[in-house]
Amino acid sequence: MPISLSMPDRRAQHILSVLKPEAGDQLRVGVLGNKIGLAKVIRRSDDSVELSIELNQAPPKPLPLTLLLAMPRPKVFRRVLQSCTTLGVKQIYLINSYRVEKSYWQTPFLQDNAIEEQLLLGLEQSRDSVLPQVHVRKLFKPFVEDELPELCKGKICFTAHPTEQAIPCPGDITQPSVLAVGPEGGFIPYEIEKLQQMGFQTISLGQRILKVETALPTLIGKMFL
Amino acid sequence: MPISLSMPDRRAQHILSVLKPEAGDQLRVGVLGNKIGLAKVIRRSDDSVELSIELNQAPPKPLPLTLLLAMPRPKVFRRVLQSCTTLGVKQIYLINSYRVEKSYWQTPFLQDNAIEEQLLLGLEQSRDSVLPQVHVRKLFKPFVEDELPELCKGKICFTAHPTEQAIPCPGDITQPSVLAVGPEGGFIPYEIEKLQQMGFQTISLGQRILKVETALPTLIGKMFL
Repeated sequence: MPISLSMPDRRAQHILSVLKPEAGDQLRVGVLGNKIGLAKVIRRSDDSVELSIELNQAPPKPLPLTLLLAMPRPKVFRRVLQSCTTLGVKQIYLINSYRVEKSYWQTPFLQDNAIEEQLLLGLEQSRDSVLPQVHVRKLFKPFVEDELPELCKGKICFTAHPTEQAIPCPGDITQPSVLAVGPEGGFIPYEIEKLQQMGFQTISLGQRILKVETALPTLIGKMFL
Repeated sequence: MPISLSMPDRRAQHILSVLKPEAGDQLRVGVLGNKIGLAKVIRRSDDSVELSIELNQAPPKPLPLTLLLAMPRPKVFRRVLQSCTTLGVKQIYLINSYRVEKSYWQTPFLQDNAIEEQLLLGLEQSRDSVLPQVHVRKLFKPFVEDELPELCKGKICFTAHPTEQAIPCPGDITQPSVLAVGPEGGFIPYEIEKLQQMGFQTISLGQRILKVETALPTLIGKMFL
């Protein structure tokens, strides 16, 4: 499949000013919602590049994980969205929690195109072609009571919360799972309890308190990789 | 042990403008290189706070890990330093690699006080009181040939490198270990080989390529937690 990319297309820009391939070189490519593969460089000029694309590989496996993430601080949110995408999370519910500052929901980073930008960067990084779905749920109680039971059907469910009552975080999980991760300062007892009532086990990585951007990859590494 | 903190001390600032405790409240504290514990607020004014400190707990366990980290981009470096500290890494060697840009070694973030700032933030986050040691090694070959053999004695050694030849990343490691993590773009074959000659096994988390700030917590979660 031949394709031509010209400036100022972001992909042309990356190829021409970062990768700088010679004719004949191969680049890794993927088509959104489709396979991944290689692109052979046919011709390259100062402001365009012609590729011959062969898509012959399945994208990397997704994680069997639905993530419930208390809306993080906007700056952190973008990085977290990207790293979760890179790690293969395909279902992300941004949820409210008592300790989520109301202003976080006003961030322009929650606009569809801003979210998609981070998801695409994450996919490019990990050579994946399947966009995660991001769901915004600004009310905790209705989400947990009305939507969560259906969402959790057939899945094992965990709340990551570093208290002494928590069980050690399990590893080598291959079944479909739901993982709830709280805000800075953690879920409040009422929220932990609500999730427990829905069948969520409270798990902990130990006594160290981690920032959400550190906790997420650490949890995913421990649980699913 | 009574202690008084006044503005503009950073700790006073945090207590007075973020935590805002009442007299009688308890705060978590630790003394560098010593135990951790609780501080009871005796008195609080607009610009100072008086505490009564009791140090009666050991700091959280360190990871049995010596990290060899190809010097990251300066901006990423600070975050990585902090998150490694939070996770309990106590030995960090910043090493050179063919794909580390020379300019990275010029960053002011490598100055002792800049490094210590990130380490302290990391310790505060995870309620730890033991500073990691950060060693700067700007030459790859002399480090690997002259220093690494001694450093690796009695440890199991790994290079994280996502190739098809790599073995899957092991979990539940409790022995003293060394983990080498490359730069953006990865170690070059010569470097992988050099490390292999020193007994390093090449391990991988799968086909997804992760940024170093994502890879490190993911690896640590999988391997040590």
